[in-house]
Amino acid sequence: MEVDKVVRLPRLSRVAVCGGTHGNELSGVYLVRELLKGRKEVMEKEKKNEVEEKEQQQQQQQPPSVLAVLANPRAVEQCRRYVDTDLNRCFTHAALKGPSSGAVPYEVIRSRELNATLGPKGGPGAVELVCDLHNTTANMGLCLIAYSDRDWICLHIFRHLQRQMPDIPMRYIHFDVSNKETYSLDSVGKHGFAMEIGPQPHGVVRSNVYAAMKAGVQHMLDWVCFFNSGSTFEGEYVDVFTMIKHIDYPRDSETRNITAAIHPRLQDRDFCLLRPEDPLFQTFSGETLRYEGNEALYPFFINECAYYEKGIALSLARKRRVMVPAIRVQTEERAQVDEAGVEE
Amino acid sequence: MEVDKVVRLPRLSRVAVCGGTHGNELSGVYLVRELLKGRKEVMEKEKKNEVEEKEQQQQQQQPPSVLAVLANPRAVEQCRRYVDTDLNRCFTHAALKGPSSGAVPYEVIRSRELNATLGPKGGPGAVELVCDLHNTTANMGLCLIAYSDRDWICLHIFRHLQRQMPDIPMRYIHFDVSNKETYSLDSVGKHGFAMEIGPQPHGVVRSNVYAAMKAGVQHMLDWVCFFNSGSTFEGEYVDVFTMIKHIDYPRDSETRNITAAIHPRLQDRDFCLLRPEDPLFQTFSGETLRYEGNEALYPFFINECAYYEKGIALSLARKRRVMVPAIRVQTEERAQVDEAGVEE
Repeated sequence: MEVDKVVRLPRLSRVAVCGGTHGNELSGVYLVRELLKGRKEVMEKEKKNEVEEKEQQQQQQQPPSVLAVLANPRAVEQCRRYVDTDLNRCFTHAALKGPSSGAVPYEVIRSRELNATLGPKGGPGAVELVCDLHNTTANMGLCLIAYSDRDWICLHIFRHLQRQMPDIPMRYIHFDVSNKETYSLDSVGKHGFAMEIGPQPHGVVRSNVYAAMKAGVQHMLDWVCFFNSGSTFEGEYVDVFTMIKHIDYPRDSETRNITAAIHPRLQDRDFCLLRPEDPLFQTFSGETLRYEGNEALYPFFINECAYYEKGIALSLARKRRVMVPAIRVQTEERAQVDEAGVEE
Repeated sequence: MEVDKVVRLPRLSRVAVCGGTHGNELSGVYLVRELLKGRKEVMEKEKKNEVEEKEQQQQQQQPPSVLAVLANPRAVEQCRRYVDTDLNRCFTHAALKGPSSGAVPYEVIRSRELNATLGPKGGPGAVELVCDLHNTTANMGLCLIAYSDRDWICLHIFRHLQRQMPDIPMRYIHFDVSNKETYSLDSVGKHGFAMEIGPQPHGVVRSNVYAAMKAGVQHMLDWVCFFNSGSTFEGEYVDVFTMIKHIDYPRDSETRNITAAIHPRLQDRDFCLLRPEDPLFQTFSGETLRYEGNEALYPFFINECAYYEKGIALSLARKRRVMVPAIRVQTEERAQVDEAGVEE
């Protein structure tokens, strides 16, 4: 009976590691370039007749095939978040299937190219896992952001990273939107998440943030390798932060310019409980404005640069403990057993 | 004889406080908007027949006339450093007097407008003092940046700010270029400096940085008021950091992409002495590159976002102690005495 408590999930054959979805979030840009360079070096090695040895290694370890993708090369070139529109909002079915004639924004065209390479979204041919690399100006440490709080692959990867990188503050954020509304690049994979690390100014790369991202990606790929090779991962509880609402800056009613900044006592305190009546903003003339909500919630994306234009000064989450079951890869033999229903 | 040791300098009748010279350096943008709003409120008060009382106060205190200027409104609108070219490099005599037909970049046009309002540069009608507000992603605290290490007005203002704001790390940076080569907005005034505060990501406003800038500007205006009103400011020594050279990132010889970031042991350590062989960069593959110079120097603008495109990873300065003489305003009576040469 004990075996039955282990959830069996399909092998993760292909993992996409994407950076530069926002062209000025530089850790991911340079990490993907490093991965692409590494692949070039691997390919050169292979030319030197080392292919056989490598294949033997792979058969033992069962690593996934890794696709490194620079998602928005034109925005990267200009070191801007985007050229025409935010690429990471272009992966809805509506945008992917919309008209392709007329003035189609660059990022919409690019989202369709990426969907062709990594998807199609929702289809059987989509890559098994998309890890999309992001940076934030908020003091958020390393976060995995996903649409599901019951994607056991993402949640087990998160726990693995937490264990492997104990010095990095780490949280799992859940954006609760229905399947039809998912809009970001990571939604193209069968599983997917954004790996968001901060604080780092956009247009800047900081060694410590780059190193954390590199380690995070390496541990993620290691985990996939362990998973594919047949390791069982024990069930456990995971804290999940589910996004509840966004709060905008106070704005001038005429000009729509902001009239206050995040209060100094809230700045950099992402994931520290915000209670009713706590200081929220400080106006440019020096007045304190307080949190008027009724429920204590966890703030995050506090003072994220790119969200000024989206009308988001911070987001608020509710924390929940989620029981994540033990998982193991579904072997071919096992899949046949499952299909025959013998142990169901 | 003691009186003769006091350098007499002309009154500072008009002070320009400029923000948004770089449109994404937001502390100055919001501070100038606040000043403009304040002036609007003052004007409304004046309408309410409070003019007389105000004039009496002014005669006692002798405050300067303050011009608040949003220097690059189009870049501010787009929250970018600039639209066509860096405005803060457009105030050379060559750019100001260049051809006005053909495809003149927006910022060159704007520099001429500003020169007409605040200058003309080098002319007798120029404003007495330009304070241009900037932010940096580098951990520089509050810096005054000027072209002269013997501008006693700027150096006394610096000392006043140091005394009034003891909790803010503060330095005086000297860019040693000849008069003909000065290129920044503050060079339009008879005296001028950039007030540079960080760390703050571009496109973000942090309450603590905004508050430091607001206090810095207020103390500067207070000092000008004291000066105009006849206070004597004692002579004293000031540490001046003179810029010696810039260091670029290591770059790929083909793509020109950077191949390393500032080393974690150097990051955020602006104005901490960098010695030969100290770690300088960490490559994206993890290697440490060391400082190969022969002389220990003071690094600043470490990892400034806007300087990636200028090929500057950090700048290096030599520290010197400058004797700043006592100063006092040149009164009209005194000016006559000086002209007659009685006490010379």
